[in-house]
Amino acid sequence: MKRSDLTEKLLDIKREKGWSWKHICVEIGGYSDILIVGAILGQMKLTRPQAAAAGKLFGLSASEIAMLNEVPMRGAGIAMPPTDPLIYRFYELIMINGPALKAVIEEEFGDGIMSAIDFDMDIARLANPKGDRVRIGMSGKFLPYKYYGATGNNLEYGFKEE
Amino acid sequence: MKRSDLTEKLLDIKREKGWSWKHICVEIGGYSDILIVGAILGQMKLTRPQAAAAGKLFGLSASEIAMLNEVPMRGAGIAMPPTDPLIYRFYELIMINGPALKAVIEEEFGDGIMSAIDFDMDIARLANPKGDRVRIGMSGKFLPYKYYGATGNNLEYGFKEE
Amino acid sequence: MKRSDLTEKLLDIKREKGWSWKHICVEIGGYSDILIVGAILGQMKLTRPQAAAAGKLFGLSASEIAMLNEVPMRGAGIAMPPTDPLIYRFYELIMINGPALKAVIEEEFGDGIMSAIDFDMDIARLANPKGDRVRIGMSGKFLPYKYYGATGNNLEYGFKEE
Amino acid sequence: MKRSDLTEKLLDIKREKGWSWKHICVEIGGYSDILIVGAILGQMKLTRPQAAAAGKLFGLSASEIAMLNEVPMRGAGIAMPPTDPLIYRFYELIMINGPALKAVIEEEFGDGIMSAIDFDMDIARLANPKGDRVRIGMSGKFLPYKYYGATGNNLEYGFKEE
Amino acid sequence: MKRSDLTEKLLDIKREKGWSWKHICVEIGGYSDILIVGAILGQMKLTRPQAAAAGKLFGLSASEIAMLNEVPMRGAGIAMPPTDPLIYRFYELIMINGPALKAVIEEEFGDGIMSAIDFDMDIARLANPKGDRVRIGMSGKFLPYKYYGATGNNLEYGFKEE
Amino acid sequence: MKRSDLTEKLLDIKREKGWSWKHICVEIGGYSDILIVGAILGQMKLTRPQAAAAGKLFGLSASEIAMLNEVPMRGAGIAMPPTDPLIYRFYELIMINGPALKAVIEEEFGDGIMSAIDFDMDIARLANPKGDRVRIGMSGKFLPYKYYGATGNNLEYGFKEE
Amino acid sequence: MKRSDLTEKLLDIKREKGWSWKHICVEIGGYSDILIVGAILGQMKLTRPQAAAAGKLFGLSASEIAMLNEVPMRGAGIAMPPTDPLIYRFYELIMINGPALKAVIEEEFGDGIMSAIDFDMDIARLANPKGDRVRIGMSGKFLPYKYYGATGNNLEYGFKEE
Amino acid sequence: MKRSDLTEKLLDIKREKGWSWKHICVEIGGYSDILIVGAILGQMKLTRPQAAAAGKLFGLSASEIAMLNEVPMRGAGIAMPPTDPLIYRFYELIMINGPALKAVIEEEFGDGIMSAIDFDMDIARLANPKGDRVRIGMSGKFLPYKYYGATGNNLEYGFKEE
Amino acid sequence: MKRSDLTEKLLDIKREKGWSWKHICVEIGGYSDILIVGAILGQMKLTRPQAAAAGKLFGLSASEIAMLNEVPMRGAGIAMPPTDPLIYRFYELIMINGPALKAVIEEEFGDGIMSAIDFDMDIARLANPKGDRVRIGMSGKFLPYKYYGATGNNLEYGFKEE
Amino acid sequence: MKRSDLTEKLLDIKREKGWSWKHICVEIGGYSDILIVGAILGQMKLTRPQAAAAGKLFGLSASEIAMLNEVPMRGAGIAMPPTDPLIYRFYELIMINGPALKAVIEEEFGDGIMSAIDFDMDIARLANPKGDRVRIGMSGKFLPYKYYGATGNNLEYGFKEE
Repeated sequence: MKRSDLTEKLLDIKREKGWSWKHICVEIGGYSDILIVGAILGQMKLTRPQAAAAGKLFGLSASEIAMLNEVPMRGAGIAMPPTDPLIYRFYELIMINGPALKAVIEEEFGDGIMSAIDFDMDIARLANPKGDRVRIGMSGKFLPYKYYGATGNNLEYGFKEE
Repeated sequence: MKRSDLTEKLLDIKREKGWSWKHICVEIGGYSDILIVGAILGQMKLTRPQAAAAGKLFGLSASEIAMLNEVPMRGAGIAMPPTDPLIYRFYELIMINGPALKAVIEEEFGDGIMSAIDFDMDIARLANPKGDRVRIGMSGKFLPYKYYGATGNNLEYGFKEE
Repeated sequence: MKRSDLTEKLLDIKREKGWSWKHICVEIGGYSDILIVGAILGQMKLTRPQAAAAGKLFGLSASEIAMLNEVPMRGAGIAMPPTDPLIYRFYELIMINGPALKAVIEEEFGDGIMSAIDFDMDIARLANPKGDRVRIGMSGKFLPYKYYGATGNNLEYGFKEE
Repeated sequence: MKRSDLTEKLLDIKREKGWSWKHICVEIGGYSDILIVGAILGQMKLTRPQAAAAGKLFGLSASEIAMLNEVPMRGAGIAMPPTDPLIYRFYELIMINGPALKAVIEEEFGDGIMSAIDFDMDIARLANPKGDRVRIGMSGKFLPYKYYGATGNNLEYGFKEE
Repeated sequence: MKRSDLTEKLLDIKREKGWSWKHICVEIGGYSDILIVGAILGQMKLTRPQAAAAGKLFGLSASEIAMLNEVPMRGAGIAMPPTDPLIYRFYELIMINGPALKAVIEEEFGDGIMSAIDFDMDIARLANPKGDRVRIGMSGKFLPYKYYGATGNNLEYGFKEE
Repeated sequence: MKRSDLTEKLLDIKREKGWSWKHICVEIGGYSDILIVGAILGQMKLTRPQAAAAGKLFGLSASEIAMLNEVPMRGAGIAMPPTDPLIYRFYELIMINGPALKAVIEEEFGDGIMSAIDFDMDIARLANPKGDRVRIGMSGKFLPYKYYGATGNNLEYGFKEE
Repeated sequence: MKRSDLTEKLLDIKREKGWSWKHICVEIGGYSDILIVGAILGQMKLTRPQAAAAGKLFGLSASEIAMLNEVPMRGAGIAMPPTDPLIYRFYELIMINGPALKAVIEEEFGDGIMSAIDFDMDIARLANPKGDRVRIGMSGKFLPYKYYGATGNNLEYGFKEE
Repeated sequence: MKRSDLTEKLLDIKREKGWSWKHICVEIGGYSDILIVGAILGQMKLTRPQAAAAGKLFGLSASEIAMLNEVPMRGAGIAMPPTDPLIYRFYELIMINGPALKAVIEEEFGDGIMSAIDFDMDIARLANPKGDRVRIGMSGKFLPYKYYGATGNNLEYGFKEE
Repeated sequence: MKRSDLTEKLLDIKREKGWSWKHICVEIGGYSDILIVGAILGQMKLTRPQAAAAGKLFGLSASEIAMLNEVPMRGAGIAMPPTDPLIYRFYELIMINGPALKAVIEEEFGDGIMSAIDFDMDIARLANPKGDRVRIGMSGKFLPYKYYGATGNNLEYGFKEE
Repeated sequence: MKRSDLTEKLLDIKREKGWSWKHICVEIGGYSDILIVGAILGQMKLTRPQAAAAGKLFGLSASEIAMLNEVPMRGAGIAMPPTDPLIYRFYELIMINGPALKAVIEEEFGDGIMSAIDFDMDIARLANPKGDRVRIGMSGKFLPYKYYGATGNNLEYGFKEE
């Protein structure tokens, strides 16, 4: 059984039952919707209790429940550059604004990155008389480049006969 | 003169003068920092008054000022997938979370996209005892897919002898 | 069930029944032909009533009808650059004329894009004694680049301790 | 001298003089604006009189005028997929609607293509209270696939000792 | 049913029956061999009578016969650059001689292309004491670039309020 | 000095002098036009006498003449897939017809290839009341796959201690 | 039946029977091992008697035997650049030494290539106290570039009305 | 001035002076050699004092010293997959062992990554009678995937009218 | 049976039984965990006794056991650049530090490579109050480039008539 | 100074002086011709005495001589797949015969590779009445995969608190 087969099965059940993502997220619980939907789509893992809840909801076998608790091979089956317009727009934003993001973040925080692992994302609707807006908030821990040779992590450097 | 040559010149002056991006953004004014930095890096255009202010700050010729007021060929000179870790993390976030973003936005808003054109972005530092965080807010107008044949934009459809 | 499997099934039925696209479009109704054909080929969604009409025409299950009402992963299964000569000619037109389109549209409309979402397309036959011509009309809403920092979309910019 | 060097020079002069594309197109004349702008950008050729007019306008040498009269290596220096959002939207339209365009055109016209060579394009502004629209019209001669073995073009087929 | 499945079935029957391509081409008739073989391999369409003849020869269903009469998605399933040495040699010839072909044809014919649609090809054996030669003849209609703005194809150009 | 610099210089002189390719080919002589043009464009070598003739015609230095007599790195600087429509059409013909060419040639000649090295090409204009045609003839020696183990080229096969 | 399916079946039988490649090569005979193994792996064709021998050894159907006698689509299913370290090392050798091989062969033989068609390869073990070595010998016919216009292969060159 | 130009200048001076990397690393000091060499090669930044030391050593201008203190666009100018055999071997190790590294690390540490930012590397020579060995030690902080919705980073999730 | 099918089967059993990798590695024994996990994932081979132990553990057929003892096509089915964040971080480390690794190793060892074949890797947890660290040790034999013409491996060089 | 600039300079001098590669190889001496030519072309390093001899022959500066003694970034500036027919034929041989080479070498030698580092190559002319042949001999040390966990290279494996 491949993770993509399980994803297809879950989507078939969702379609057959006429469930919304909201409904699924409420039933599984514990994470934000983006993470739970990501897990159903094969890009995130669920905790054991969440996987059990998903198993009950979808009527899954023990093996299928176990698979939802595994860390998937993230990014598998995803086209890059994205072909879908909704996803491509995000890609374009990163491409066009990438160098400016780098310059502004580095000036404020120093050499490092915004973590994509210790990371939060939320989505909200912003009502607007000219047309509602999608509001996406991201928050990632800033990780400064560690310049080793000074960190003392039990790593001696240099060429010596050992 | 290519836009990339102008970018190189501007960065040379910034380095020589020891200016921060903050300083440049304040001098040019009118946009958020991300946009002004993007324009200096050759990905955005400045308005005429902004370009004039930039020209005064950097000591540019009339042609160079005019170029800052042109819409550049966006995305030129940018590596995708990004090789720089800071920019790559954003790319990874889009890749991994793209399908979930699509599912969640479409369930809430219907068929359409978050505009990358009518779009705002802000960056802030979130103080945090476990390590400060980068906070990025995005807000883009939701654009619903228009299903033509019903929009009445003076387009008659069908094969006919005209 | 994958969307591509449903597409294959629909094409099998069309072939078996000897239906034309015209016939299918009339039966489903409500959109221009390009959109309905696009939905059958797995690139567009149908409304609920259209999907129901398609379900009746093709003899589909409730799940299959529901799938036609879903937004597909657009662009999936499409080769780019196009290998088919008919589609490639459009690609070539965009490649060769792209920079000129950019220059002419920006001079007339300012910095922005022609929307590919709020967009209409029609196709017509132009009778011509030297050989009939394909006439394609496109109409997309012009979307001006919004320069944030001035839009007031509830986004405060800047680095501050929050 | 490379064609791209000449393009850069022409753009430098345009910028220095503050000319609009309209102005340049009127001065050179004889073609639609898209074609003349395309020639200045290095993707189309000008006729001898047009090249002479361009030479007079821009103050070019005889060699530079001759180069404008040459057929360029079309597509040189153009990024595909387009990185610029304005051009990318056209690319996306072709990608998403390509198979439907193929189906609809072939049902109406039979096996063949819309010529990208015997081809016209016009651009217009469609005033619209909800926001003006970009109107693009294309007209290309339909070229039916010729099934040789029946065309009698002096080509005998088959393996024979000659 | 995918076109590639039908191709596989036809090749299975050809192999089982021990037929040569010659035999198949004679039975189907009406086109040159290259075209008929191309149709069996899924790159060309057969006319209705040819498809019927193919159906009789191979014992096909009505749906399979109908599929042979459809225009396939040309180029599908073909590796480029070609990995097979026989096909690669042609690719190499185009790559190495492409710019010279362009120069020589444009000097003789002007700006335009040799049509790949109104196109004939024949193959013959040239007996030669040093080793027989493959003789390939191509004949394509020359299509001059049409410079619109002058063609009068019912396309008004320019930005106007409509 | 790079070969591409020499090509650029030769094209500059050709443009300045207003020479046709015909003129250059007649002056250099000895090969077909395609080959001589190919050498000027940096894809073929000239013989010593031809290079001398070219040197006289273009007023070249001894080093430049020597370079024309060198075998260039063929294919350098050529975009594949071709972006120029004239060259792309040939590419498309190979892509679409490649498998059929393979099938037909192998049935007639057996396992092997048409040589791209021992190869001739000619181009001619075919007058035609419906529009003149480009006629391209190719003739390449058929090279049968040699199945070694039987050729006796002083190569003993097998694992042995030597 | 695809060639890759037959390859998979043959490898299954080889594994089940515990045969070595040596054993298979001896049973089929007539070619060097590299060629016979290549045919089993779907990259070479066997002669009719060899295919019959293979059919007897593996217990194949008439269709499967016929397929082994067909010229396969060479290169299908092979990853380039090679991911497997054993194959990659050869790729690397060609990449690093390619230009030097070109220079040395052209100085000795003139303009042309070493044929990959009229070609022999053998492999041997070179016992060596520091570790045995793999010895690969290649021998390919040198094919000089034929400069047509002088070969007299019944090809008249030039633009003339025919 | 581009960072790659500065790199070239520094390598020119190193070559002219006959300095070893060791010498340069000792003079600049403060980091491990890999980091300092990386900064000279344009992939890392130096601290202000280090950049000053480098400036003194190499005789650099204030602008050049400032550039060494900037965070470079990491990965710029680096070929991937690596063409150089020494670097390719590391790439191959990651490719072949990647999935196993993922499985083993995730079983021990849970869902997350080894940081490439909070990361140390050392290199040592391991004397060995069969041939010395390169010993590379890496140590990166394990970063567990944070499952937001539970982190409380001031991000409220959900679609609501704000 | 493909190796990827066997991998899928083994992972299904592991999931069903709830085994850890540790358990599997202990049962199979003899190699480090990375290697055994790599073999289960289809990138390494097991020895005959190990394969037998795996067969007993997983309940495999003789053919499946034999397959585990075969050298797989390494790298098959692995995405590069890696899409999974855990694996990508290693890729990034090689990309960013590759040139510095080359410089430092070559200065210490001379021209050559660290073998990826005669190679060891270990993984350990480094307890750390700020967060545990992943410790990876690599040790590969240094292989100096052999400059032939001097090695005396029974290879005579030069062009001579043999 | 880039290595490619030095290569260009060396080729300019070779052309101006009319030297053959043979001459250069004799003057520099010590390696086989392939290696010396490779060094001149920027893919190999020369020893100090060889670089000195090259410096004397070509009249180089001390820096240029030092650069010839450096290990270059191998593979830089080389197109893959090769566009030049002479080099492509080798590439094709590896592609088509790669899997068979892997199978035959592994059966004889076990799991491992033929070293591309401890490697010899010679080229010879094989006189042949049907046309002379290029004879290439390769000899690389066989390197068996070392299965660590058993090699005792001072690497303890496993997760432990250190």
